[in-house]
Amino acid sequence: MRRTAFFVSDRTGITAEMLGHSLLTQFETVKFTERTLPYVDTIEKARAVVEQINRTAEQDGARPLVFTTLVNPDINRIVSQANALVLDCMEVFITPMEQELGVRSSHTVGRSHSARDVVDYHRRIEAVNFALAHDDGLSTRELNQADVVLIGVSRSGKTPTTLYLALQFGIWAANYPLTPEDFGSMRLPPPLVPYRSKLYGLTINPERLHLIRSERRPGSKYADLANCEFEVREAEALMRQEGIPYIDATSMSVEEMATTILHQANLTRHIY
Amino acid sequence: MRRTAFFVSDRTGITAEMLGHSLLTQFETVKFTERTLPYVDTIEKARAVVEQINRTAEQDGARPLVFTTLVNPDINRIVSQANALVLDCMEVFITPMEQELGVRSSHTVGRSHSARDVVDYHRRIEAVNFALAHDDGLSTRELNQADVVLIGVSRSGKTPTTLYLALQFGIWAANYPLTPEDFGSMRLPPPLVPYRSKLYGLTINPERLHLIRSERRPGSKYADLANCEFEVREAEALMRQEGIPYIDATSMSVEEMATTILHQANLTRHIY
Repeated sequence: MRRTAFFVSDRTGITAEMLGHSLLTQFETVKFTERTLPYVDTIEKARAVVEQINRTAEQDGARPLVFTTLVNPDINRIVSQANALVLDCMEVFITPMEQELGVRSSHTVGRSHSARDVVDYHRRIEAVNFALAHDDGLSTRELNQADVVLIGVSRSGKTPTTLYLALQFGIWAANYPLTPEDFGSMRLPPPLVPYRSKLYGLTINPERLHLIRSERRPGSKYADLANCEFEVREAEALMRQEGIPYIDATSMSVEEMATTILHQANLTRHIY
Repeated sequence: MRRTAFFVSDRTGITAEMLGHSLLTQFETVKFTERTLPYVDTIEKARAVVEQINRTAEQDGARPLVFTTLVNPDINRIVSQANALVLDCMEVFITPMEQELGVRSSHTVGRSHSARDVVDYHRRIEAVNFALAHDDGLSTRELNQADVVLIGVSRSGKTPTTLYLALQFGIWAANYPLTPEDFGSMRLPPPLVPYRSKLYGLTINPERLHLIRSERRPGSKYADLANCEFEVREAEALMRQEGIPYIDATSMSVEEMATTILHQANLTRHIY
């Protein structure tokens, strides 16, 4: 079975997309074509969206599913009249929330021009800049300003996790590679010693590491399976010896790693 | 008025957080304390969550709001019995979806071990690696592999937008700075000329740019307001002359810029 799903929003549509997508994955026997329609913030755009949905309904021979996060009631009303199962991700919760809180909702779009958002924006940019400046041990200056320092062997997933922590949560995250030199001495790299309490480790299945490294440098010592096994074993031993918490990144997504570290390391997110 | 809001999930909790947070912003007169409780995936954890919510209800003297994305019905049932307004972000939509599609949902948690997810993971990592390798004009090799190349003056927001495109959508995005040398000739930087069709510009209000640059290098020519005005004016003139689409990043969040570029440049996202 094939169906089309639309995510319609007067903003970026990311919320409708995330919720809608995870709902769609609950129906494994259905093949969905997913389309995001962001910034539907005028009556004209709402009407065009309805036309697009109705055309799709005819082409598919079945009603599309439409997930909406539309705050403006007039726009919402128009989109809700499309020939589709329209699932309103906001309104369904607003009424019980108004009753619980005893106040009316403001029905205003988004929060992009609020003072809080400008602050969030700056925090995010600063966190990204910090992550980039402290990627892969590039600089160990200002590590005292880091919220967390990720360590692990090369290609264990440190960089994307660091960037996700910065972009999504505003966390100041550095990352520093553990290399074969560190395993000889079985000591932490000296620049990290003062920041032991901020360290968090990533580890990875050696076979998986071998595959990842082989894509980069096929046939190298670096990618060699025995070498990957050695590096992973030594890195884990070093982290255990030093009492540094670590997680196995092998079967986790970047979001999962970042969220797990956020909570296990008790970090305070700086943005929502 | 002060209330506590919980986001409870058997996964990362990011979906519950995004939806819940945007619903909370509709109630501007209420101050919310927001707490995310991820990976609630056992009966024991569910019971501990209920205790935490009930304790908070007592301390606050008011029921918390609880946004859940819990797939396991047993866990869901336990959490729903907390002394709170529990808003189930999944179940409320699952029933109408089952009716519309004529199939039962699988009620399985997440998608982290599916084949699709491993593919998504690789695509995301590759996109991040590409973005890092091609940040700020670092390398212009392989620009033919870019989905999009962001251009703009220094500190106009290119880097975080590039990284967001990579992490969230799997887009291969490079970025390249426009510098005063480019404005003398009013020509595109030569390495960009073959990729004109992939270029997308960011611009920014000169006063805002002045503030941002002043934080970095106070009192410098670089941060000087007149220089910022010159650079922005020339960059915009160059982009107009070359027919390169551009957006004003001044009052947009990183998500908004990335989403706008995704749609206006007609990019195909590689991951959901």
